Amino acid sequence: MVDKLARFGHIALETPDLDESVWFYRDLMGLREVERDGDTVYLRSARDREHHTLSLTAADEASVDHVAWRTQTPEDVAAYADKFETDGLDVRWLDDGEETGQGEAIRFEPPGTDQTYEIYYDVEKPGTEDGVPNPLLNRNYSLTETGRVNPLRLDHVALGVVPADETVDWFLDDMGFRMNEYIETDEGHKIGSWLSVTSQSHDVAVINPPKLSGPGLHHVAYYVDSLEDLYDAADILRENGIEVDGGPGRHGGTQAEFLYVKDPGSGHRLELYTGAYHVFDPDWEPIRWGEKDMMKALLWYGDPPGFDTTPF
Amino acid sequence: MVDKLARFGHIALETPDLDESVWFYRDLMGLREVERDGDTVYLRSARDREHHTLSLTAADEASVDHVAWRTQTPEDVAAYADKFETDGLDVRWLDDGEETGQGEAIRFEPPGTDQTYEIYYDVEKPGTEDGVPNPLLNRNYSLTETGRVNPLRLDHVALGVVPADETVDWFLDDMGFRMNEYIETDEGHKIGSWLSVTSQSHDVAVINPPKLSGPGLHHVAYYVDSLEDLYDAADILRENGIEVDGGPGRHGGTQAEFLYVKDPGSGHRLELYTGAYHVFDPDWEPIRWGEKDMMKALLWYGDPPGFDTTPF
Amino acid sequence: MVDKLARFGHIALETPDLDESVWFYRDLMGLREVERDGDTVYLRSARDREHHTLSLTAADEASVDHVAWRTQTPEDVAAYADKFETDGLDVRWLDDGEETGQGEAIRFEPPGTDQTYEIYYDVEKPGTEDGVPNPLLNRNYSLTETGRVNPLRLDHVALGVVPADETVDWFLDDMGFRMNEYIETDEGHKIGSWLSVTSQSHDVAVINPPKLSGPGLHHVAYYVDSLEDLYDAADILRENGIEVDGGPGRHGGTQAEFLYVKDPGSGHRLELYTGAYHVFDPDWEPIRWGEKDMMKALLWYGDPPGFDTTPF
Amino acid sequence: MVDKLARFGHIALETPDLDESVWFYRDLMGLREVERDGDTVYLRSARDREHHTLSLTAADEASVDHVAWRTQTPEDVAAYADKFETDGLDVRWLDDGEETGQGEAIRFEPPGTDQTYEIYYDVEKPGTEDGVPNPLLNRNYSLTETGRVNPLRLDHVALGVVPADETVDWFLDDMGFRMNEYIETDEGHKIGSWLSVTSQSHDVAVINPPKLSGPGLHHVAYYVDSLEDLYDAADILRENGIEVDGGPGRHGGTQAEFLYVKDPGSGHRLELYTGAYHVFDPDWEPIRWGEKDMMKALLWYGDPPGFDTTPF
Repeated sequence: MVDKLARFGHIALETPDLDESVWFYRDLMGLREVERDGDTVYLRSARDREHHTLSLTAADEASVDHVAWRTQTPEDVAAYADKFETDGLDVRWLDDGEETGQGEAIRFEPPGTDQTYEIYYDVEKPGTEDGVPNPLLNRNYSLTETGRVNPLRLDHVALGVVPADETVDWFLDDMGFRMNEYIETDEGHKIGSWLSVTSQSHDVAVINPPKLSGPGLHHVAYYVDSLEDLYDAADILRENGIEVDGGPGRHGGTQAEFLYVKDPGSGHRLELYTGAYHVFDPDWEPIRWGEKDMMKALLWYGDPPGFDTTPF
Repeated sequence: MVDKLARFGHIALETPDLDESVWFYRDLMGLREVERDGDTVYLRSARDREHHTLSLTAADEASVDHVAWRTQTPEDVAAYADKFETDGLDVRWLDDGEETGQGEAIRFEPPGTDQTYEIYYDVEKPGTEDGVPNPLLNRNYSLTETGRVNPLRLDHVALGVVPADETVDWFLDDMGFRMNEYIETDEGHKIGSWLSVTSQSHDVAVINPPKLSGPGLHHVAYYVDSLEDLYDAADILRENGIEVDGGPGRHGGTQAEFLYVKDPGSGHRLELYTGAYHVFDPDWEPIRWGEKDMMKALLWYGDPPGFDTTPF
Repeated sequence: MVDKLARFGHIALETPDLDESVWFYRDLMGLREVERDGDTVYLRSARDREHHTLSLTAADEASVDHVAWRTQTPEDVAAYADKFETDGLDVRWLDDGEETGQGEAIRFEPPGTDQTYEIYYDVEKPGTEDGVPNPLLNRNYSLTETGRVNPLRLDHVALGVVPADETVDWFLDDMGFRMNEYIETDEGHKIGSWLSVTSQSHDVAVINPPKLSGPGLHHVAYYVDSLEDLYDAADILRENGIEVDGGPGRHGGTQAEFLYVKDPGSGHRLELYTGAYHVFDPDWEPIRWGEKDMMKALLWYGDPPGFDTTPF
Repeated sequence: MVDKLARFGHIALETPDLDESVWFYRDLMGLREVERDGDTVYLRSARDREHHTLSLTAADEASVDHVAWRTQTPEDVAAYADKFETDGLDVRWLDDGEETGQGEAIRFEPPGTDQTYEIYYDVEKPGTEDGVPNPLLNRNYSLTETGRVNPLRLDHVALGVVPADETVDWFLDDMGFRMNEYIETDEGHKIGSWLSVTSQSHDVAVINPPKLSGPGLHHVAYYVDSLEDLYDAADILRENGIEVDGGPGRHGGTQAEFLYVKDPGSGHRLELYTGAYHVFDPDWEPIRWGEKDMMKALLWYGDPPGFDTTPF
């Protein structure tokens, strides 16, 4: 097998109202606008260490262009390309710079879904704010300079895939992910799976719960520092006239605290996320939630999340 | 006018399942059982400085026996008795010790409600835990000794009164309360009023919102130290198989964070409560929430509270 | 006796570097600049409900011009003037508007100190930000709009008085304050006293501990919402190259968490303060800390505060 | 190279007062006593998923018996043994069960230190509390059942090694650790290095700062959930008459909040630890702190840690 992936790297969203979406992610959420190229705006959060972790592109309707995963080494990109071609997937190469801030990369549709994924290694690294070192040498950006939500970093993505089993197997078998927790029906279908290549409780969730509106993007999540920050975020949203879409509350699966909100420009759902455990054990045994415990996994307490998705 | 009252002092609840209610308030919530007298159990929380702030009495059905208010001076009890008799209320005197831990007191029904209120001054003060001074001399009880919810102190009571206007006026005019915030319908009815005699944003709420099931007790509230403690409380409840009844969330009125839970023995609702502002200004102008803003006052964000009451 | 006071209202500081002090209190601490009148700048924090709670005046050296206390009623100002003149104090009247934003007031030196205090009632009330109501009707200013420290409100003042006993008695006997906690030497001198007219654990501290550099201002304190906010404040200070002067830590007396920092323009010490208990009991018994427990009262844990003062 | 290690697994401490040390780690800190075998007591914390993460053995004086690292696979143990023997190290094999709860393992002294390290893979996994599943299926132990400190899990170990350079190189070159941050003198000596094999900002710190008393154990760290929990821990310690040894405060390096306390039975230092960042990037560039920034790396703000060690 090729080396397992390094991490979830970024997501490319399409929005019918670019100005509104930029206002939401940049002015309200506090992500930094890194660069603008034609109809695409690139952003990252305070502690993200790549050129961008989110891009927004003007389009006729809200959709997801691609989800991108980073490899452990530059050589792994070609190794994945070879492997996927052998597996019969259609692999397209991107030239260096074809995606702004990024080197050569591949795009493809994994089995069981017509969603587009990207694999890359080379990417520009952010310098410090205006080139001036932060007094804390391990910070690029100040965590304190803005009254916006100012999440720390990209955390994970949750994809709606219907049915989900084949895609889950592909993540586990072909991409080196570890299964941390899953919801399984009495018939043996995995309708919620929390998977990771890092120590996180999940880098990707693949979900297909009964109430789900269909395949697509359920949410992309950014990490905030504390429960206080999650509540401050809700306060900032409400002062700005934005409805909370779910939470504050706590998932049983992952044990994380959450707040959901939708970009008013596109309807894409954002999760602000804190807590959660890490897995450092090489022999982690996946947690199985059966049908009777399933609701606890989704919601331990608090205001429940919605189950609609945007197209992907 | 007689001196304004000093504070909300305690509430006497009746429960059809005394053992279950004692388990809930003592073993799960962490209130201390102070004394047991026949079918009545007296409790207080860590920082409460009176003999009890809650009593539980076995009864055929869940109800409220009385709500008690403390005066500024011993003489004020008789002064209130005189005043109420002049006003045509029926005043009954309690002997010293008739309520355990408490001196002479009066009971009566305020105008506009058939609920029973008590006014008292003399009350036993708690000593330290087992008579041993805490290393922090300004603590009676340890705040750290128990993994239960362990709220700090009694905070306020919320009464359902239908209609509410006359009772609200009585609190303001006859009892020396200050109006801090209120919800007013277009017809001029106060359907939610937050009133205090202390600096708190409310010592009593008098509520009659459209969804309310009727008069009675909506909840009694104890104060916890932080948002973390509120979340830990929800976690403790859920691990013990108790459903959360509302929250975590934040009220717009008072700006407090809340969690509601019902005693499984009686159905009486308890609020765990933190944040909220204090009023130190002698010329505070009450905040008015009209019909269009009413829902914000009740719920700024989070899982909404229920609107049923237990009899009073 | 005249009515007890309503509250600690504001402090007027003098600074040798007005620009630096304004940068500190406004741009770093996040107090709003309300008005500027000649060499004086008036500020208040987000939840303060008077024209100003702090003023800064250019002067040759750092000092305190006056500390101001607000009465319960307009009539109380003259009543205090009469009383003080009867007591032999020298009382000076200020005209309406002589202090910006404020009506008629009196100034005087309390016995046992040559510090100047002010008593006032009439004061302008802040409107909302730019005249636009906050979506939360009980807010004047957004709590979320700035990445500065943004404390909620003025809390208390700590005065160094040497010796302290006479001044403490004057607060208790003549001004209606309640003694909440005190440190007493074996010889019976009160070298630290925490006094209040509100429910707070103190509106004023009068201190004369062994290490104290002399009489004057030890600190003025603003309240922040949580421990997280206290830590964020320390982070903001350090990113801006400001040394912390003491804390984070926790006092035993009052049980409050604290952070001290000095205005680099004047050297006046500011305390950021959270937690602390409230006293709602009409018969509170003051907590006495003897010499052996004294250090616990000053510091329960954390980085200790300094003991120097600025002139007053 | 053999696979990189999986994680820091446990530490074996010796103490001259076993009863006092057990009281400290079990009754005050809230670690669970898992098993007792002769003069050795085995403990773990709520979220630890191995038989033990700490052992305490009665001995004439406080010392460290060994520090143990877990491999990715069972086969890696022998692979490391081969490698170390090739490198000229003296490798001793432990039989299955020779260390309670653990399979075959090796012990050896790494170059540049006479400290004993252990490498193992096979280890018993904890079941749930008394065999009863927690309502949250991803929990072994309740996080809410005890008023003790109750940290979540083992985090890292800090070793004093004098000089440190050779040992740091060995961790990097032979053991697969990543350098995340380091303090380097003008002469090019690494006097503080934060290294990890997981995403943590460090699994081991190797320190040799100017003030350090000598080689040995500086501290072992357990992770707590939040800043509130760190403060509650300090409160619990102080109520139990234990002095805080450093903190609360925040390191610049790692950006973590900390509290240090010494086991009164042995003098071994324990760190309670929260916050800190994770590294998910495959191409992380180590942060270098030079002499002028060194103090910021050690202490961003708060009460400073001590620099003494216990023998190892």
